[in-house]
Amino acid sequence: MSAKTVSVKENILAANTEKAEQSRKLLSSRNVLMVNVMSSPGSGKTSLILQTVNRFRHKYRIAVIEGDIASSIDTDKITRQNIPAIQINTGGGCHLDARMIRNSLDTMDLGQIDLIFIENVGNLVCTADFDLGAHKNVVILSIPEGDDKPYKYPVIFIEADAVVVNKTDVLPHFDFNLDDFPGIIRGLNPSAKVFPVSAKTGEGLDSWFSWIEEMLM
Amino acid sequence: MSAKTVSVKENILAANTEKAEQSRKLLSSRNVLMVNVMSSPGSGKTSLILQTVNRFRHKYRIAVIEGDIASSIDTDKITRQNIPAIQINTGGGCHLDARMIRNSLDTMDLGQIDLIFIENVGNLVCTADFDLGAHKNVVILSIPEGDDKPYKYPVIFIEADAVVVNKTDVLPHFDFNLDDFPGIIRGLNPSAKVFPVSAKTGEGLDSWFSWIEEMLM
Repeated sequence: MSAKTVSVKENILAANTEKAEQSRKLLSSRNVLMVNVMSSPGSGKTSLILQTVNRFRHKYRIAVIEGDIASSIDTDKITRQNIPAIQINTGGGCHLDARMIRNSLDTMDLGQIDLIFIENVGNLVCTADFDLGAHKNVVILSIPEGDDKPYKYPVIFIEADAVVVNKTDVLPHFDFNLDDFPGIIRGLNPSAKVFPVSAKTGEGLDSWFSWIEEMLM
Repeated sequence: MSAKTVSVKENILAANTEKAEQSRKLLSSRNVLMVNVMSSPGSGKTSLILQTVNRFRHKYRIAVIEGDIASSIDTDKITRQNIPAIQINTGGGCHLDARMIRNSLDTMDLGQIDLIFIENVGNLVCTADFDLGAHKNVVILSIPEGDDKPYKYPVIFIEADAVVVNKTDVLPHFDFNLDDFPGIIRGLNPSAKVFPVSAKTGEGLDSWFSWIEEMLM
C-alpha cells in the first residue's frame, strides 16, 4: 500500500470516528444504549437480535438498524415482530459507517427508545475498522465457521466487547474446541466477554441477556 | 458516495482488471489453469482445495496461493501435503487483487505447473469486485450459512462460474432448502454450475472434480 493510500484511509477513518463520537454522546445524553452486532454472513446476527428483542420487548423500547448490501429480508423479519427497523442498503459497500448510522438516528424519536441494535453487513474484515458510535461492539462467530477464525481475522476480535459463539446446538457435528475458545479470545483481548449460545434453542442466552440488561439498568 | 469516490474506485478497478487480463493471458500461453475460490470465513475453501489437490496430485502439478488477513494456518495445511503454497497476508485488506497475484505468479516456474488454486480472503463482498486473472471464479456457500445469502450478497453469485454448496453432511441440522437452491442461483446467474458437496465426507465431489478436470484436458 502506498503512503498516499494509507493517508487517505487514515483521513476517512478519522472523520468516521469523529462522527461516531458525536453519535455516542448524543445517545448517552438521551439515555439510549446502542449495540453494534458484526459477524460473517449467516452466523446468526438476525437470530440473536430477534431473541434479544423478544426477551426485552415488554420491558424496554427497542429499535433495529439493518445493514445489508442488498435486500430487506432481515428488516422484514424484525418488523414482523412489530419492532421498528430501519434498512440501510449499502449498494455494494462492505460495512456500515458512522454517517449512515447518524442519518438513521436522525429519523428516530430517541426519547422513545431505550436500546438500538445495529446489524452490520455480514463481513469479518471491513466492519472492524469503522466505529459506528455504538456503546458496545459484539462479534458473533458460529460453530460451523471453525475455532481458528480469531487467528485469521484478529482485528474484529481484538476490538470486540463481547464474542458470542452461536449455534452451540450443532457442536457435536463440527470440530470446534469450545472448551479452549474463551482462552484464545482472552489471549487476543483480555477484557472481552465470551457467550456460547444457541440462538435457535435458547441455550446459554441468559448470560447474554444479563450482560445487555446490566447496561440498561 | 460522491462522484469523486466512484471515479477513484472505477480507476482502481480498471487498473486491476488490466493487470488481471495480463495474468490470464500469460497463464493461458503457458497452459496453466487458475481457479479463484471465494467464500465467507469458514465455508470450507481450504477443505475443498485440499480434497481437490489430493484427487489430482498424481496426475497434475498443482500450486496454491493463500490469501489471509493474517496467519499462515491454511498455507501450513497445504504445504504439509507437499504441495507448493504461497502465502499472501493482506495486513487488513479484505480481498486479494491482481497485482498481489501477479507478484506471486512471478515467483513460480509456470512451466512446472498445470493448475493453480487461489484461496481468497474470507469475504462475500469485497472479493467479488477484483478480477485476479483466474480462468474460473468459484464461490462456496456452506449449509450453515443459510439459503438466503444469494439475495443478500448478490454480486459474488452473479459473477461466479460455479457455486459449491458445502457441508451437505449437516443438512439435516439446518433450515436450508437444497432442492430449490440451484433454481435461486439460476435466477441470478443462468450459466453458473451448482455443486452440492461435503468436503468432509466426499459426498458430491465427483461432479466438482469432473468440472475441474474437463478444463485441464
